[in-house]
Amino acid sequence: MTAPARRLRLGMVGGGVGAFIGAVHRMAARLDDRYVLVAGALSSDRERAQVSGQRLGLASDRIYGSFGDMATAEAKRDDGIDAVAIVTPNHVHHAVAVAFLDAGIHVICDKPLTTSLEQARDLVRRVRRSGLVFGLTHNYTGYPLVRHARAMVGDGRLGRLRLVQVEYAQDWLTTPLEADGNKQAAWRTDPERSGPAGCLGDIGTHAFNLASFITDLQLDAVAADVTTFVEDRRVDDNCQVMLRYESGCRGALWASQVAPGNENNLRIRIYGERGGLSWCQENPNRLEYAPFGEPVQILTRGGPGTSASANRATRIPAGHPEGYLEGFANLYADLAEQITARLEARSPDPEAMLVPGVEDGARAVQFIESTLASSRRGGAWVDARMRWQDDA
Amino acid sequence: MTAPARRLRLGMVGGGVGAFIGAVHRMAARLDDRYVLVAGALSSDRERAQVSGQRLGLASDRIYGSFGDMATAEAKRDDGIDAVAIVTPNHVHHAVAVAFLDAGIHVICDKPLTTSLEQARDLVRRVRRSGLVFGLTHNYTGYPLVRHARAMVGDGRLGRLRLVQVEYAQDWLTTPLEADGNKQAAWRTDPERSGPAGCLGDIGTHAFNLASFITDLQLDAVAADVTTFVEDRRVDDNCQVMLRYESGCRGALWASQVAPGNENNLRIRIYGERGGLSWCQENPNRLEYAPFGEPVQILTRGGPGTSASANRATRIPAGHPEGYLEGFANLYADLAEQITARLEARSPDPEAMLVPGVEDGARAVQFIESTLASSRRGGAWVDARMRWQDDA
Amino acid sequence: MTAPARRLRLGMVGGGVGAFIGAVHRMAARLDDRYVLVAGALSSDRERAQVSGQRLGLASDRIYGSFGDMATAEAKRDDGIDAVAIVTPNHVHHAVAVAFLDAGIHVICDKPLTTSLEQARDLVRRVRRSGLVFGLTHNYTGYPLVRHARAMVGDGRLGRLRLVQVEYAQDWLTTPLEADGNKQAAWRTDPERSGPAGCLGDIGTHAFNLASFITDLQLDAVAADVTTFVEDRRVDDNCQVMLRYESGCRGALWASQVAPGNENNLRIRIYGERGGLSWCQENPNRLEYAPFGEPVQILTRGGPGTSASANRATRIPAGHPEGYLEGFANLYADLAEQITARLEARSPDPEAMLVPGVEDGARAVQFIESTLASSRRGGAWVDARMRWQDDA
Amino acid sequence: MTAPARRLRLGMVGGGVGAFIGAVHRMAARLDDRYVLVAGALSSDRERAQVSGQRLGLASDRIYGSFGDMATAEAKRDDGIDAVAIVTPNHVHHAVAVAFLDAGIHVICDKPLTTSLEQARDLVRRVRRSGLVFGLTHNYTGYPLVRHARAMVGDGRLGRLRLVQVEYAQDWLTTPLEADGNKQAAWRTDPERSGPAGCLGDIGTHAFNLASFITDLQLDAVAADVTTFVEDRRVDDNCQVMLRYESGCRGALWASQVAPGNENNLRIRIYGERGGLSWCQENPNRLEYAPFGEPVQILTRGGPGTSASANRATRIPAGHPEGYLEGFANLYADLAEQITARLEARSPDPEAMLVPGVEDGARAVQFIESTLASSRRGGAWVDARMRWQDDA
Repeated sequence: MTAPARRLRLGMVGGGVGAFIGAVHRMAARLDDRYVLVAGALSSDRERAQVSGQRLGLASDRIYGSFGDMATAEAKRDDGIDAVAIVTPNHVHHAVAVAFLDAGIHVICDKPLTTSLEQARDLVRRVRRSGLVFGLTHNYTGYPLVRHARAMVGDGRLGRLRLVQVEYAQDWLTTPLEADGNKQAAWRTDPERSGPAGCLGDIGTHAFNLASFITDLQLDAVAADVTTFVEDRRVDDNCQVMLRYESGCRGALWASQVAPGNENNLRIRIYGERGGLSWCQENPNRLEYAPFGEPVQILTRGGPGTSASANRATRIPAGHPEGYLEGFANLYADLAEQITARLEARSPDPEAMLVPGVEDGARAVQFIESTLASSRRGGAWVDARMRWQDDA
Repeated sequence: MTAPARRLRLGMVGGGVGAFIGAVHRMAARLDDRYVLVAGALSSDRERAQVSGQRLGLASDRIYGSFGDMATAEAKRDDGIDAVAIVTPNHVHHAVAVAFLDAGIHVICDKPLTTSLEQARDLVRRVRRSGLVFGLTHNYTGYPLVRHARAMVGDGRLGRLRLVQVEYAQDWLTTPLEADGNKQAAWRTDPERSGPAGCLGDIGTHAFNLASFITDLQLDAVAADVTTFVEDRRVDDNCQVMLRYESGCRGALWASQVAPGNENNLRIRIYGERGGLSWCQENPNRLEYAPFGEPVQILTRGGPGTSASANRATRIPAGHPEGYLEGFANLYADLAEQITARLEARSPDPEAMLVPGVEDGARAVQFIESTLASSRRGGAWVDARMRWQDDA
Repeated sequence: MTAPARRLRLGMVGGGVGAFIGAVHRMAARLDDRYVLVAGALSSDRERAQVSGQRLGLASDRIYGSFGDMATAEAKRDDGIDAVAIVTPNHVHHAVAVAFLDAGIHVICDKPLTTSLEQARDLVRRVRRSGLVFGLTHNYTGYPLVRHARAMVGDGRLGRLRLVQVEYAQDWLTTPLEADGNKQAAWRTDPERSGPAGCLGDIGTHAFNLASFITDLQLDAVAADVTTFVEDRRVDDNCQVMLRYESGCRGALWASQVAPGNENNLRIRIYGERGGLSWCQENPNRLEYAPFGEPVQILTRGGPGTSASANRATRIPAGHPEGYLEGFANLYADLAEQITARLEARSPDPEAMLVPGVEDGARAVQFIESTLASSRRGGAWVDARMRWQDDA
Repeated sequence: MTAPARRLRLGMVGGGVGAFIGAVHRMAARLDDRYVLVAGALSSDRERAQVSGQRLGLASDRIYGSFGDMATAEAKRDDGIDAVAIVTPNHVHHAVAVAFLDAGIHVICDKPLTTSLEQARDLVRRVRRSGLVFGLTHNYTGYPLVRHARAMVGDGRLGRLRLVQVEYAQDWLTTPLEADGNKQAAWRTDPERSGPAGCLGDIGTHAFNLASFITDLQLDAVAADVTTFVEDRRVDDNCQVMLRYESGCRGALWASQVAPGNENNLRIRIYGERGGLSWCQENPNRLEYAPFGEPVQILTRGGPGTSASANRATRIPAGHPEGYLEGFANLYADLAEQITARLEARSPDPEAMLVPGVEDGARAVQFIESTLASSRRGGAWVDARMRWQDDA
């Protein structure tokens, strides 16, 4: 007899009616049928929380008015949630994560991890002590060809790395959209809710994380120019950062939300002594590989020569494009494997361990703080190394 | 109080362990949370049917060994399935569809509709008489920008149409893969299971349907050259077809499964007196629009200027690529609306009526038969008009 | 002592003020410094011929009012022209070519060769008897990567060829431009000057020639649909042609001048048992090569792995784009080598022999006639083989 | 009577057998038939100079063994050269330019202007005093769509500029090619001949100039990280530079010669309050224009909506690609107009004045010096403003 795949019980904090990323998390959780959403504190507004829960078909006793109530109540139930997805504005991440970790519940948290390095370090310590799974949805690491790029770098296909050029350009904040009542723009440009970094935190951290994920390099120092172009905007909307990695690799990171014609243009190029790679999120089923001195090759998701870790994250054949939701779902599927392995007291599939975790989140917060510091100091190189010694 | 969205009870025929398209249908059904899979006759092999049902977590009394048993039993249950998805090889479509239509169950059927025009006409009559929903998963019609292209043509943005150039090229059958035990290749090149057309039926019909969907034109005649390049292959693997539409529009259709470097390269270009459009399935979030005498514009899914029907079929913002599964899921979502409307005795959202139906399937079978006839007659123009008079 | 490169004395017929292709020929002749333009009968209008010659700085005694006078006079001069470039409307090609061949002068002629197959056969015979160089400027054969494609096919890199898909789409005749006094449109749509074929002769022949050049295949038969979309136009403006080659290779050719958004979109794809190639004229420094079962490779002009014949036709390093004029100039440079070899009574560089000649021109005229015949006969397959037996 | 176009008498210093850029200058000069090469000091090696001159067909008395002799002798001749093209390694530019300016001969000089700011300032003063034409071949300004981009920025189509992202990546120096006897690599990595900057001077200056040309902005300050990756290389091979313009516009410049897969990848993106532009040198006939809130438009050379200044620099219709040599030739053509106007004592066509001049060259040398200084100072912002007060 074949056992059916186990479906995990999932709760959600944030993500009520009108939210963007909550719906993405739910689709990602659903795609591979590894989760059932059974509980939620979907809004800090109790009425909205109620309506949102009903629309999602949650049982009425599992629609909560606050995340604290939810953590407490779910921890007590025999059929309580296995994991919680945190999809609130950034400033709430820390408190929610603490509540569920304390309740012994695995956490899937949206990025950036926290709005301060102190909070980030606190979460690192708590996760380490708890032994719980903590997944951070730097979702661009879920794309199969991003994983293939990481495998290629790891296999030495590029030789020793010299250069990382990463950029993440959008245009939706070209005008003062936050002044027009746009909800997404409002909280993302409000330092109370998004933290001190605007564009830098919202998308710059994705770019930084993507580079770290593919290269496995540790940042050494940054020199930055962080700018606000739109009048009266309270956070940055453009960042130039020069990067130095501990290995001697150099790089540049550009993040902007005021670059007309760019919808969600996350692009990375990596160059080593023996070859280069180029990948763009807007056409994610294609990876350019340039072995030095040979023709450039177009690698495709599911196509010839892709690695096991990439193919594992692929659902349908080459030429049938997968996109953002499928990449996001790969994180959920891997976290399902991690959590299920805990529940079943076995070792997880090692390939499921690629999902960014709390330390990756802390590194991104360190990157934010160092970048802001460099910019304040006139672009001088600022130490950006993450130090863990006091985080045990 | 807000009512939760209704979830339809779905059954599946075919799609057991190792199948490709069955898994696609299940992901498509799941993505928007409008269906719950509750029953299946997942293989004609009873043991495989059993194992497959268990893996999917079906209740043991709803894992059926034959589609006939399933239709009968589900029709009797109070909680019987609302709809069945037929994802078997082509030659079984007709019998399964008949069984479920006769049982009063709505049908979602993979393409091509049937392996003969006679069977197709029979299904048209049965569906018309039954009053049931019949959706045919010519899934490429589900892409938002394909729907936008249709809206643009309908709005007269291209003027009177002159030309349709459509092609669908793959390379996976470049070698005699069917001789190597590849299951997908085996049934798709076996006329007993796929019908008399190979490449023409498998992908040529998608290309034909896509052109019909966007232009809303009726075919008048075809002149064709249908070829088998791989030795001992029992069906065609390449087709050239010249098209004439009743309106006077002309076109060409090329379908091939022996074109190295093409993974799933479905591409359409449409030209009218005032402009042109170009769309490629492998990069589906982008549509080129050329208003005559002005610069070409790049329209994007969710981007500026896209139509309501396209945006309705869009889940996430521009720049966050959606792909094949999302397009497929749009058909499932629209069929959910059609079926739910029947259950609730209300009119469906008119925008949900774009899903190809049984008549579209019959037209594609007519296209197959006319194309094969023209090729046999040395490329002469052959009447390809669909005549419905006897199908009431 | 190093001898300077010999510069050939060039005359031109046609190409006066306001002409397009004459200026192209002059730039092409000049680029590599192998020719000096010294004589011309630049217009059939004597006054325009005079003004045009003066503007180009020709000596007054070498500005001719008629091509006949020019042929006679130049043949008598000690410093008479070595070669003549014929850049008139199509209907004059034959007479001018005859005049200069009879005068013992090498000929460089624009395409199509003639406006009838009879004239074409006549020129073939005359060139064969004369022993003179006759170059036909099917200029797209001059692109380095087109030559590289030919070398790859010749080397068996694609295996036995199965398919040729070639298309040449433009949009400039989408509206009745010839009715608005546009000089280029006027003669190209006037059967008295362009011959019986419009789009088919103007650009369809380029597409046909390009396919022949790269594959070295001989045409067996065509089945065609030739259409005129613009009201009152006197020649075709769109052609669909299905191709059969003697080797068993099949193909399709589409040529259109009414496809909005296409400027000069000549594109060819070739598929064999072992691989495929794709090249687009509008981005000519890039050739896609798909070895079956391996990643697609992007070959670049001057880049890794390009053949000697391609590199010989390349002036500047990879990444520094060459274009239409450079491709055209490659024909002129090769013809300079052919002609110089005759003058120096030596064998020419074999690599310089790739320029299309009078037989290639005749084949293209045969293609026109067969295609028009098939279209008239309802798309039936029409024999398109060139027969030379009576052309000795 | 129509006067023929005047052909200028051109001399050349450098560019002998085996050189790259000298041949490019000669093709550029020849393309539009505005120059005749009549004299040369083609190598500092007298024998090579002699052989090179003979190969080019120069009269024996105008093949010079030194540029000094050439300047003196040509100045005395009635038929002496009108202009000299300087195509030597960088370190010689200053001395040659001085010699010909002193001889009253117009100068066309390759970039970078000089190897020190002092020399650059000296040339600025000398040119200003001389009243002679001085053209600097920052040739990428010659591309029609680059000129169109400049026109669009000037017309306010982008609104107030916020961002310039420019990059110039190559891969040919990924390995220590200079140690293998490659002549181009040898002098370009030798600070005695190329100056203190390697990649920065060779291609970084092109990127800087291109941004300046299109935007017409003046640089305020730079913060840089200049690196040498290849062991034992004597100059930089990679540069990251953050840019601040006086207007408040920010930017980033990346230049690299160690980025595998990049042949000659000069790319610029410019963003303003109302729109964005993107252009890549490797596909130069296409410019992407993103009016904020509207679909991106693909502008083409010669296509709909291009400006007079772009069309003036265009020889052949849209869709017929022009490339590097044509762009280069546009500078030569414009300089011919400038010089001819002097000879004819008339005002030149204002559109011909876009060619970079000695001041632009000095600005690029200032950019080099400031960038190197910032990198030495740990990435601190360094004043990069050009000050002219002492250059009258």
